[in-house]
Amino acid sequence: MRRLIKNIRQLVQVRDRVPPPLRGDDMDRLPVIENAYLIIEDGVIADYGPMEALPSSDADRIIDASGRLVLPAWIDSHTHAVFARPRYGEFIDKIKGLSYEEIARRGGGIVRSAEALAAMSEQELFERAMRYVEAARAYGTGLMEIKSGYGLSTDAELKMLRVIRRLGRESGIPVKATFLGAHAVPPGMTRKEYVRLIIDEMLPAVAREHLADYADVFCEEGYFTPRDMDLILGEAARYGLKPKVHVNQFHALGGVEVAVRHGAVSVDHLEVMTPGDFEILADSETIATVLPGCSFFLGIPYAPAKEMIARGIAVAVATDFNPGSAPSWSMPMAVALAVIKQKLTPEQAINAATVNAAHALEAADRAGMIRRGAPARLWISQPMEHYGEIPYYFGTNPVGHILEF
Amino acid sequence: MRRLIKNIRQLVQVRDRVPPPLRGDDMDRLPVIENAYLIIEDGVIADYGPMEALPSSDADRIIDASGRLVLPAWIDSHTHAVFARPRYGEFIDKIKGLSYEEIARRGGGIVRSAEALAAMSEQELFERAMRYVEAARAYGTGLMEIKSGYGLSTDAELKMLRVIRRLGRESGIPVKATFLGAHAVPPGMTRKEYVRLIIDEMLPAVAREHLADYADVFCEEGYFTPRDMDLILGEAARYGLKPKVHVNQFHALGGVEVAVRHGAVSVDHLEVMTPGDFEILADSETIATVLPGCSFFLGIPYAPAKEMIARGIAVAVATDFNPGSAPSWSMPMAVALAVIKQKLTPEQAINAATVNAAHALEAADRAGMIRRGAPARLWISQPMEHYGEIPYYFGTNPVGHILEF
Repeated sequence: MRRLIKNIRQLVQVRDRVPPPLRGDDMDRLPVIENAYLIIEDGVIADYGPMEALPSSDADRIIDASGRLVLPAWIDSHTHAVFARPRYGEFIDKIKGLSYEEIARRGGGIVRSAEALAAMSEQELFERAMRYVEAARAYGTGLMEIKSGYGLSTDAELKMLRVIRRLGRESGIPVKATFLGAHAVPPGMTRKEYVRLIIDEMLPAVAREHLADYADVFCEEGYFTPRDMDLILGEAARYGLKPKVHVNQFHALGGVEVAVRHGAVSVDHLEVMTPGDFEILADSETIATVLPGCSFFLGIPYAPAKEMIARGIAVAVATDFNPGSAPSWSMPMAVALAVIKQKLTPEQAINAATVNAAHALEAADRAGMIRRGAPARLWISQPMEHYGEIPYYFGTNPVGHILEF
Repeated sequence: MRRLIKNIRQLVQVRDRVPPPLRGDDMDRLPVIENAYLIIEDGVIADYGPMEALPSSDADRIIDASGRLVLPAWIDSHTHAVFARPRYGEFIDKIKGLSYEEIARRGGGIVRSAEALAAMSEQELFERAMRYVEAARAYGTGLMEIKSGYGLSTDAELKMLRVIRRLGRESGIPVKATFLGAHAVPPGMTRKEYVRLIIDEMLPAVAREHLADYADVFCEEGYFTPRDMDLILGEAARYGLKPKVHVNQFHALGGVEVAVRHGAVSVDHLEVMTPGDFEILADSETIATVLPGCSFFLGIPYAPAKEMIARGIAVAVATDFNPGSAPSWSMPMAVALAVIKQKLTPEQAINAATVNAAHALEAADRAGMIRRGAPARLWISQPMEHYGEIPYYFGTNPVGHILEF
């Protein structure tokens, strides 16, 4: 099966070979071919170039993309897309001015998500999550990370992770699974006891069933300390689970240093940064993943992504899709927020949401760019003439048609 | 043709009769029927009620809306959807830190839009605008206002208004036209000379061809004064054009008072309000239309919509869709911003975007609510259980299927 897409207004994010994570000035370079063709053979990108170089050969199907762009699928490298119930009630309570304490008294937060999840069958949990993954796919996401962390018991964490694995098999989008047992301390347990449970019971069980690719810890006041993270990541390494962690959302507690020392694939959130954090990340191989949807929804500061890029840090953008603090699965919205609010250029934001996000999932060899030999996970845009229109038409879906997902 | 929609999870914004513009506590009441049916006969809402009261009668077609909501189409009462070119280049220049002066030197702003529009054929202008109106329709907009104002010459203003009228005839969405000659002073003319041109030449020509329903003035420092507005609105009244004006976006110059004295149907923007402005609006029949998309995109303060409602002002929400300061046609995004950023409850925001927005276009007798005898301009949602999910899933399109547009 050979398909030709011709007359592409802009073929965006074209790379001859897989680049390392993009930093500094490289973030400003978004390789584009104007008026291009693309050939897909059996689901793999076979060739591309400017229309004047189009080889005269047969195609089983020809798509005319006149007046439209073609981009690689977004990589959403940080989500909590498996949850039992949306928490819009809590959102409305906040709008009405209820304090966090009142909402907690009414049973809000991560613990509410955990109660609902414990009571739900694995099948129903899967069906609900599948709807969200399909919604994300319709907005152009072609590879997704999903975390556990609404289980908070061994059984419920395993249930979540099995659902995440099944989504990877059945949704049509490859999914990477992250074990986030250390998302919150469940009621009736001390933090110490729960960290013990994670280490003694959860991690071995997760590893036994090969249910996770990464290990995550929510390092934050009232949640887990850098010392807890150090312990958990040390144990996780014994099972081959690399770190991919929540740090510096509300407070800079030193989590960046601990995570980088453990060879974290990414450190995520980073709304609050110390001068030392900037230096540690600039000197590391770790991707800094910013989550502007969470800042937008909660009204907290945005991560200083522009400064990170200026300082040579490899930045990725993700949705943080979750029911409490970022209930949007739209990567185009995350990209728009990165541009409009974090003041990234469209080139930087698109690089952050494709090439660097692929590195944040160790998948740059097969996702995040238009490259010969890579799987053809692509989308054809709505009518537009320039990729700058993607963040410009904020809150709308730039995807016209999804190819080969 | 009789169609039955059954098993509707929530039938939202149900009204037995047309209410006056909603104010104060009435804004908190969003009439909903849970588990409802709706019957449409020849494009008109014939009946509705809870499923247990479903009459046993025939239908030509039955739609099962299990797990979905039905809402009346949004009313977008303030747009500039007819323009020659998107201005994403200027947007990117701003992101890169160029000052307004530099952008102006490069030919940005309303004047750039006017140059591009003057050079474009009426047919091409129509085709481009049609794409945007269709995009808005896909996000649930069922009645739209569109302004002129990128013409800035008699010929070009008439061209724009003819395009707007044609959109109303051919797009499938009814469109109200507003004459906004006084959008900016064109180069080579004094403000006084241009106001004279509007009064002596443009208004009579617009009236002769019945090209507008309303008259608008951008009352702002560097644009038009309250005195200009007074003059233009006085003349417009002679041709039966009611005021619908831009006031208080960056400065409170006294425009609210002038507009209300002229019986304005709506005053729009209102990011900057004086105590006197609150009082004048609370005592008037004029709708206060807030445009949160513009505040989001420009990073300027949001209009104090919550305080307006608390003070008894009838508030509407619209997109302000335009190429310079609010390039999003999505009413769901405007509603999400009204909730997340302006802290309206979902009930208030939905009332503002339906019933009150319909009043802002004098169309509440035929749009903005589910009412027996009204045209069935409705949408069936994506799978969801509560209208609170519409602003919650920000940046995504809640519309699953559009009915009878």
